[in-house]
Amino acid sequence: MADTWLTSLITATPQEGFELAIKLARMGVKYTQPSAEVRDKLRPVYGEDANALIASSQVVAINFQTIAAANGYWK
Amino acid sequence: MADTWLTSLITATPQEGFELAIKLARMGVKYTQPSAEVRDKLRPVYGEDANALIASSQVVAINFQTIAAANGYWK
Amino acid sequence: MADTWLTSLITATPQEGFELAIKLARMGVKYTQPSAEVRDKLRPVYGEDANALIASSQVVAINFQTIAAANGYWK
Amino acid sequence: MADTWLTSLITATPQEGFELAIKLARMGVKYTQPSAEVRDKLRPVYGEDANALIASSQVVAINFQTIAAANGYWK
Amino acid sequence: MADTWLTSLITATPQEGFELAIKLARMGVKYTQPSAEVRDKLRPVYGEDANALIASSQVVAINFQTIAAANGYWK
Amino acid sequence: MADTWLTSLITATPQEGFELAIKLARMGVKYTQPSAEVRDKLRPVYGEDANALIASSQVVAINFQTIAAANGYWK
Repeated sequence: MADTWLTSLITATPQEGFELAIKLARMGVKYTQPSAEVRDKLRPVYGEDANALIASSQVVAINFQTIAAANGYWK
Repeated sequence: MADTWLTSLITATPQEGFELAIKLARMGVKYTQPSAEVRDKLRPVYGEDANALIASSQVVAINFQTIAAANGYWK
Repeated sequence: MADTWLTSLITATPQEGFELAIKLARMGVKYTQPSAEVRDKLRPVYGEDANALIASSQVVAINFQTIAAANGYWK
Repeated sequence: MADTWLTSLITATPQEGFELAIKLARMGVKYTQPSAEVRDKLRPVYGEDANALIASSQVVAINFQTIAAANGYWK
Repeated sequence: MADTWLTSLITATPQEGFELAIKLARMGVKYTQPSAEVRDKLRPVYGEDANALIASSQVVAINFQTIAAANGYWK
Repeated sequence: MADTWLTSLITATPQEGFELAIKLARMGVKYTQPSAEVRDKLRPVYGEDANALIASSQVVAINFQTIAAANGYWK
């Protein structure tokens, strides 16, 4: 994964921080499965699986915990 | 997801913080599955699945941990 | 969920903190599945499922981590 | 659960802290399934299930994280 | 589990810390399933199960988080 | 696992930190299943399993939380 995609954890708002958390979750998948074709093929599978959607939200929650601490909770 | 839905992690009470944690959990699902139609179709599925309900509560617990820290535990 | 059920994370003892962690775990389920009838129907299901019991204990552990930090570990 | 079983998170050694983390994990199950008869019936089930054993170890790890922080990492 | 196996969380290097995290994960299993015979019987089962291997790595990650904090991140 | 592979948690950038988190996740698997042959055999299995990919991303998220704290969030 040569290209630069993550230069800072600092965001202007909590919402941007949440969206960065989502990006981290997706990059965690991308580093494990680099093929966009395979990932696209799987999207309708997990997109309609309640357990997979809950599990995805959990990965976002863990990443958001990291980013929120990094940003001093935007206080 | 252009609209602004998260401007602060600060809440007046722990209960409001818990309810924000639930919102974060749901937004984590919404960003992954933007179709309200699909999400509504899944609600009766996970709503009657003990494991899915426990997993949902776990995502809330992780988000609540973040929000509680952000609010200095409302002390 | 209009009624007030969570006004503070501070408890007198670790055991009260653990019991509050259990309440948070149950409220996380209740906010997701408000029907007491459905939740009661599910209790014998997860009550006799080892994996569901372990997963429930995990949600309590995460909430207890939050409450213990909130209470300065009752030191 | 009227009896007193948790009065402090402070332990003399990390090993005692780890054993308290195990107790917390088991109490999380006990509060969810108070019947000793049912819990005993389930022990051979999860005791020979690799995924359940890994999941149990995870609950201990989360509780140990809490207890280690409470004890200042026994430094 | 009478014998003494955990006297400190402090390690000389991050790698030793990671290996202690693995030991904690395995001890979490051992306290739940004391029979070495059963644990040995299960090793080929989870050793060739991708989900079990990922779940094992997660328990190590949680324990490593604890040990890294205990060691001040070896800075 | 005699060879030295982890000497520091400090990285120059968040992206390097994320890539170290991935390495830790993979080493957690490697310590549990040392056979490269078995791990290679499993890659196409979890590489096309949405739940396994989400679970992998979660292990990375937990490790990244540790590394980000170690690096003071690269501020």
